[in-house]
Amino acid sequence: MNILDIIRKKRNGEQLSPQEIAFFVQGYVDGSIPDYQISALLMAIFFRGMIPAEISVLTRQMIDSGRVISLPENPGPYVDKHSTGGVGDKVSLILAPIVAALGVHVPMMSGRALGHTGGTLDKLDSIPGYTTALSEADFVRVLGSCGFAMTGQSKDIVPADRLMYALRDVTATVESIPLITASILSKKFAEGADALVFDVKTGRGAFMATLEDAEQLAASLVRTAAELGKTAYAVLTDMSVPLGYAVGNFLEVEESVQCLQGNGPDDLMEVTHSLAACMLHAAGKADSLVQGRELSRQAVADGSALDCFYRNVELQGGDPNQLQKMLGSFRAPVSLPVTARSSGWVAGIDALEIGLAGIPLGVGRSKTTDQVRPDVGFMFDVTLGDRVDSGDRLCTVYAADQASAESAAARVLGAVELAPEQPAIRESLIVKEMLPK
Amino acid sequence: MNILDIIRKKRNGEQLSPQEIAFFVQGYVDGSIPDYQISALLMAIFFRGMIPAEISVLTRQMIDSGRVISLPENPGPYVDKHSTGGVGDKVSLILAPIVAALGVHVPMMSGRALGHTGGTLDKLDSIPGYTTALSEADFVRVLGSCGFAMTGQSKDIVPADRLMYALRDVTATVESIPLITASILSKKFAEGADALVFDVKTGRGAFMATLEDAEQLAASLVRTAAELGKTAYAVLTDMSVPLGYAVGNFLEVEESVQCLQGNGPDDLMEVTHSLAACMLHAAGKADSLVQGRELSRQAVADGSALDCFYRNVELQGGDPNQLQKMLGSFRAPVSLPVTARSSGWVAGIDALEIGLAGIPLGVGRSKTTDQVRPDVGFMFDVTLGDRVDSGDRLCTVYAADQASAESAAARVLGAVELAPEQPAIRESLIVKEMLPK
Repeated sequence: MNILDIIRKKRNGEQLSPQEIAFFVQGYVDGSIPDYQISALLMAIFFRGMIPAEISVLTRQMIDSGRVISLPENPGPYVDKHSTGGVGDKVSLILAPIVAALGVHVPMMSGRALGHTGGTLDKLDSIPGYTTALSEADFVRVLGSCGFAMTGQSKDIVPADRLMYALRDVTATVESIPLITASILSKKFAEGADALVFDVKTGRGAFMATLEDAEQLAASLVRTAAELGKTAYAVLTDMSVPLGYAVGNFLEVEESVQCLQGNGPDDLMEVTHSLAACMLHAAGKADSLVQGRELSRQAVADGSALDCFYRNVELQGGDPNQLQKMLGSFRAPVSLPVTARSSGWVAGIDALEIGLAGIPLGVGRSKTTDQVRPDVGFMFDVTLGDRVDSGDRLCTVYAADQASAESAAARVLGAVELAPEQPAIRESLIVKEMLPK
Repeated sequence: MNILDIIRKKRNGEQLSPQEIAFFVQGYVDGSIPDYQISALLMAIFFRGMIPAEISVLTRQMIDSGRVISLPENPGPYVDKHSTGGVGDKVSLILAPIVAALGVHVPMMSGRALGHTGGTLDKLDSIPGYTTALSEADFVRVLGSCGFAMTGQSKDIVPADRLMYALRDVTATVESIPLITASILSKKFAEGADALVFDVKTGRGAFMATLEDAEQLAASLVRTAAELGKTAYAVLTDMSVPLGYAVGNFLEVEESVQCLQGNGPDDLMEVTHSLAACMLHAAGKADSLVQGRELSRQAVADGSALDCFYRNVELQGGDPNQLQKMLGSFRAPVSLPVTARSSGWVAGIDALEIGLAGIPLGVGRSKTTDQVRPDVGFMFDVTLGDRVDSGDRLCTVYAADQASAESAAARVLGAVELAPEQPAIRESLIVKEMLPK
């Protein structure tokens, strides 16, 4: 067996055997196959795709390339959620305490902001004292104690993905559904999850902008997990407009607390309850998604989810009292209102534009080495379908200085679409739910 | 400008600008762009292709990546021939002295055997004393003195192609018409040719096995040369059957001498005269291809081509007298006849099979570091359409030892197709001629 034949085979549109997939994954990790052959193979996979059997073998081989975390058998099952990334997407901060309060154990491994999309770890890091760098022992202890724990991805799991993702990133081979599927699933399963719920975003602010691509990715994730003997749910949700009113690290923590207090915006809560329903169903805590949604609403209404959130803040090093004092007041030095130049109805808020406008403020980063700020961002006053008059405030920009505030404000103004007639707006953000067979 | 955007652009099927092509060629040669990005780009080019304007810019950039050889202005114009490679293809050895005898100057830069195809340099090296490693000064002297000179490719021209070809070879990106076009033309034009005649082979023993691919390559070569302000002709010739009766280094030198003595087989002479006609036309020595063919036949008939050949042998260090003594007798120690197992008509001799059967004997090499032998190979007794009876000799195998002779003989027997009825055979090996506009 040699790598040149494997590249040629895939290039010609043929299916790779399990042995051939194992050969190239292992050879890449052990250094016997150089970067330049793997990048050619990845580009051939980009063009030719992989059938489900190839994707599941690839995922398995990637899992086996490194350490697999074993969580204690009790209190399983462990259910995690993964989002393909969005703007204003603080769902994890609300969802984890809700389902944990209902008895699900959530070993949540999250990422950081990159490009126009935000990162759960950056949001949590805006809580003074809160650490997302937990040792494995601390992670298990927090998880056992409050039902969920929030951490970054371990460095020593799935080395094949770490190498391959870095290579894909510089060779324009990221946008391949087989490669994305194997990358996401290998990391999540190596981290000890028994079941996974995916929030696959679609629309302008999503990584997979078209509905067709998002559906294909969702189906691939659910099917491949099943082939690996694991359980996965996928919910396709709309990301054409930022989720909720807040976009920014601490601003989103604040909005999450409001959600857990029962004052969350409809769009954000609809996505949260839908994902919670899947997680509850996966853990055997709900017999149906309808029942799951109802349980999720109750956990907010009775305050148990909020309690669970504060317990977690304390367990991970934060001070709930200090956090509460910051709510409504912890803001960057410069605040600048964005006001409507005309009257009309809000027909769109371009999520991609808002995400990109946040990068120079320090909401996100354009490259992994950039620093983010906790106190900057956008707090919207309006949402889809709202009536506004000329001069009404649409949004407040929080920034470190006047120049960056003005530049971001101009971009926000351009991203808000005002229609002269009342627009027909989306009835639901949930485009589709895919359950395991 | 950055390489990631360039890869993505080509991956998405867009056309690269001249600046982008210059950026990646120069960046690869100066080491600022790593192999793994170029190999991904090459694979994207494999899938998406390039339009003519991109191919000519790529060729120009590759030429400009290194030194360009300047042949003396007199006695130009310089016309070279390039074959895409075949089995039994000793055309260069016959063609160069023919057209040189008619006043064309041929700065012939050739290659070595690789895979199933033979190499002109290996054939010439079987002549004792003959050197194909000429200094540039000696090359110019021999060329001026007898009208043609035979040498290997210079090491310092087209470094972009040397790097890129080595990378394509290990990343399954060789078979791309834009990349092949730029590779061939950049080398040939950097070597000082004013006009080129291409023998583009098609059929089982050819690099471009399908007629469609061969036609596309031929058209691409002719068109791109024109865009660079140079002249190129292409002749598509059949390579489903080995050319002539001899396959082997010295065996082919011997057959070439027979051709120059006027005793060449029809198929080999048809290809030779067709290519000669193009070269004579390109050099302004013939007004038409018909006249060119006639001149070519005359140069064989009057002995001037054979004289020119021997003059070249002497000028490049060989001894014509010693060469003549070896004719008919310089053979590897083991000879083994291959005889027909049944009666019938020769309906096919699989050129690819014969080429591959020759590699273990030492006719060719499977990798560039393999050694070839001068004295081994196949001498056929039959050609397409011949009637044979069971027990008739089809071929003699010359080998270094009995075991390799037997193994090759078995393969030759399997490669000769005997039909019970007299088959319809090709009327001509010339599939198509493409002249510059």
